[in-house]
Amino acid sequence: MSSPQRQLHFNAFLMSSGHHEAAWRLPESNPFANTDLGHWRDLAQIAERATFDSLFLADGPAVRANPQYRPASALEPTILLTALAGATSHIGLIATASTTYNAPYNLARRFASLDHVSGGRAGWNIVTTADIASAQNFGLDDRPGHRERYARAAEFVDVSIRLWDSWEDGAELGDKAAGLYADPARIHPVDYEGDYFRVRGPLNVPRSPQGRPLLVQAGSSGDGREFAARYAEAIFTAQQTLADGQEFYADMKRRARRLGRDPGQVKILPGIVPVIGSTEAEAQALSDELEELITPAYGLDQLAKVLEVPPGILELDRPLPAEVFGRPLVEGAQSRAELITDLARRENLTVRELIGRLGGGRGHRTFTGTPEQVADTIQDWFDRGAADGFNVMPAALPSGLRAFADHVIPIFRRRGLFRTEYTGQTLRDHYGLSRPASQFTATRPRGVPEPVA
Amino acid sequence: MSSPQRQLHFNAFLMSSGHHEAAWRLPESNPFANTDLGHWRDLAQIAERATFDSLFLADGPAVRANPQYRPASALEPTILLTALAGATSHIGLIATASTTYNAPYNLARRFASLDHVSGGRAGWNIVTTADIASAQNFGLDDRPGHRERYARAAEFVDVSIRLWDSWEDGAELGDKAAGLYADPARIHPVDYEGDYFRVRGPLNVPRSPQGRPLLVQAGSSGDGREFAARYAEAIFTAQQTLADGQEFYADMKRRARRLGRDPGQVKILPGIVPVIGSTEAEAQALSDELEELITPAYGLDQLAKVLEVPPGILELDRPLPAEVFGRPLVEGAQSRAELITDLARRENLTVRELIGRLGGGRGHRTFTGTPEQVADTIQDWFDRGAADGFNVMPAALPSGLRAFADHVIPIFRRRGLFRTEYTGQTLRDHYGLSRPASQFTATRPRGVPEPVA
Repeated sequence: MSSPQRQLHFNAFLMSSGHHEAAWRLPESNPFANTDLGHWRDLAQIAERATFDSLFLADGPAVRANPQYRPASALEPTILLTALAGATSHIGLIATASTTYNAPYNLARRFASLDHVSGGRAGWNIVTTADIASAQNFGLDDRPGHRERYARAAEFVDVSIRLWDSWEDGAELGDKAAGLYADPARIHPVDYEGDYFRVRGPLNVPRSPQGRPLLVQAGSSGDGREFAARYAEAIFTAQQTLADGQEFYADMKRRARRLGRDPGQVKILPGIVPVIGSTEAEAQALSDELEELITPAYGLDQLAKVLEVPPGILELDRPLPAEVFGRPLVEGAQSRAELITDLARRENLTVRELIGRLGGGRGHRTFTGTPEQVADTIQDWFDRGAADGFNVMPAALPSGLRAFADHVIPIFRRRGLFRTEYTGQTLRDHYGLSRPASQFTATRPRGVPEPVA
Repeated sequence: MSSPQRQLHFNAFLMSSGHHEAAWRLPESNPFANTDLGHWRDLAQIAERATFDSLFLADGPAVRANPQYRPASALEPTILLTALAGATSHIGLIATASTTYNAPYNLARRFASLDHVSGGRAGWNIVTTADIASAQNFGLDDRPGHRERYARAAEFVDVSIRLWDSWEDGAELGDKAAGLYADPARIHPVDYEGDYFRVRGPLNVPRSPQGRPLLVQAGSSGDGREFAARYAEAIFTAQQTLADGQEFYADMKRRARRLGRDPGQVKILPGIVPVIGSTEAEAQALSDELEELITPAYGLDQLAKVLEVPPGILELDRPLPAEVFGRPLVEGAQSRAELITDLARRENLTVRELIGRLGGGRGHRTFTGTPEQVADTIQDWFDRGAADGFNVMPAALPSGLRAFADHVIPIFRRRGLFRTEYTGQTLRDHYGLSRPASQFTATRPRGVPEPVA
């Protein structure tokens, strides 16, 4: 008997009318999708019918720049995903939340609660939040520096894990006759004292179905990679070329191994923005339609923001000016800025062309083609050591998700590379990740008798 | 034609197996109700079938003392209520959240999101969180003082209101042809600078169906009353006697009027723990059964905690010691401590008797009787200027809620004092409260042309 074939994983990265900045202007789009629960339910159910591993929401606690040009607001992800938990039964639910602008006790509790109400489907995309607008919503004049944000993030995750572990499995006894509701010996203070946080604990939520939410990370800077290697169980990433994807994949697996982790328990999911048509010409026509709907002033502003330069120095029909290359690392989204300047240089793009390329995925790889072509490039990265699966970012929603679900997923099922039905119940099950034991259970001295229930 | 009769309002205050501390030990109770979504859905649907105005969850960010004796943990309320929004269609959803241990931007956003996903059913019970255990989960050694907590709470609510107002109604245009997603002139920074908070804004959620969540408050100390008079649209309160209820009711309406508010827009809802039987004897038997299941050590600890004395000075079969009376005001839950010492003195209770009286409602009024008797005492308070409605706190759940819904609600419907079906869609509609205008809309200079959509 042959061993079972290695399987792909798919995450559906959802964003109101779609990832393309002009998607809301398509004739069929609902421009108010961002606050329309029916729209989100529809997306979640499409993804669940296609047995995606998970769906995912990005987030930041500030209004996006230039709210006049595209949807600039969003429901808070743990709230929206809780609503979607009730409209689905299996698909994983991954919410972005910031370690810079939350308190660990509150956030750990919200994720434990989401894991309970969803029956073990919660995931947390850990972000440090690089923008200045967010800082100014929390009493700061400027964002903390890159290093400091990651140092705080590490403490935040450490204390969160202790809080999730603070109720051992079985701590709740419910022994009516004895009047013993819980076993205090299995409920632990966490007594965390760090540079950023002091937390007494225990959490006020019993251990959740997954033990902990799935931990996801997406930063690709040096600090980001080190952080992901230490904590992440799934990594969302953005590479434009197979070679860059392979480098990142090998590097992350190596880093995880060096830290004593099983690299198989770290899933790498590059982003892809598929623009799908039943023929190449149809796919290209959709791509052109989206590009024509871009408002250049918006793209220019966004590009200037991520590169951290004044918009005035960028000219639409000229290449990027020399000063944006080879600068000292910026305090914001380092790896994204580098990816964009690399792309412009490699393909010798004007600013206008660069904006067109970025319009779909803000630096993620856009691929325009037929379902077979999309499937082939995904499998190519999967087979050649650049991916354990993909972060699917439809350019327009719901149409792009439906196209992927109806036309690309069946190809992988035929090739034996993707499930035809859910075989597990939790998000960890779908990704083949183990349920962690509580650190307090693990350290219980042998020979100590179990409490009598 | 006579004018329509003034109507009662009912809030269902839900707490896992019930408000009585021993309810989880009843034979029919689910001892793990606190994390069982099916239990909560059942409660929400019972309350909605009985056309309650709202349901409500208390909260604090710490494990309750003595977790061995009763359910000591809880799902985070905004998460749980979001899940219940999907299982109901009309009933209001009021979550407790602390102004001392949250950031306004995050919390305002969560309530706006809950208001969106529930179609206008969100309410916020504003608490300052008096206990030390909570403080120690957020880096503090001790709680901030009473005055400071309320000063921070006032700023917190001020900035939250500005954030909710920051997107005017109609700010989202969705004009595809013009490429104009939103009207920047209707999206406002809040630029708040106070002693506790600096928040730039705007919120990243468009104005929600209710404009703002319903604001609820429950503190009855001097600071608490002043705060409630300024901000609260519904007030949960605890009085043991009609006279105290009348005093509180008149005082709150007077304070609201003095601040220029319409007192009719401030609804007073005293708490009642109804223990219902089809006969008086049956009700008394249920009350006795619950009292016998109390673990005295737990009650003693809880009593010592709220009175802020060492448990050692309390003796079960003696009255409260002299030193707990007439002390300078404590920094914790002032009004609740006074209510308890007053009750003990007025009825000359031993500590054991006092614990029995408090077991059901932690200081709220317990009333044992038939459905008619329960209805009569409620109507008495309603008719005699002590209540606009009641905060119904069933001793055991779901049985106590079902008894109230099936046997007490119909009495009020027959008496013409309570709705037979929902006539509005939002929580504000149910309580007869108006939808506030955005402060930014109100201050738009006349003569400024509306933007062309």
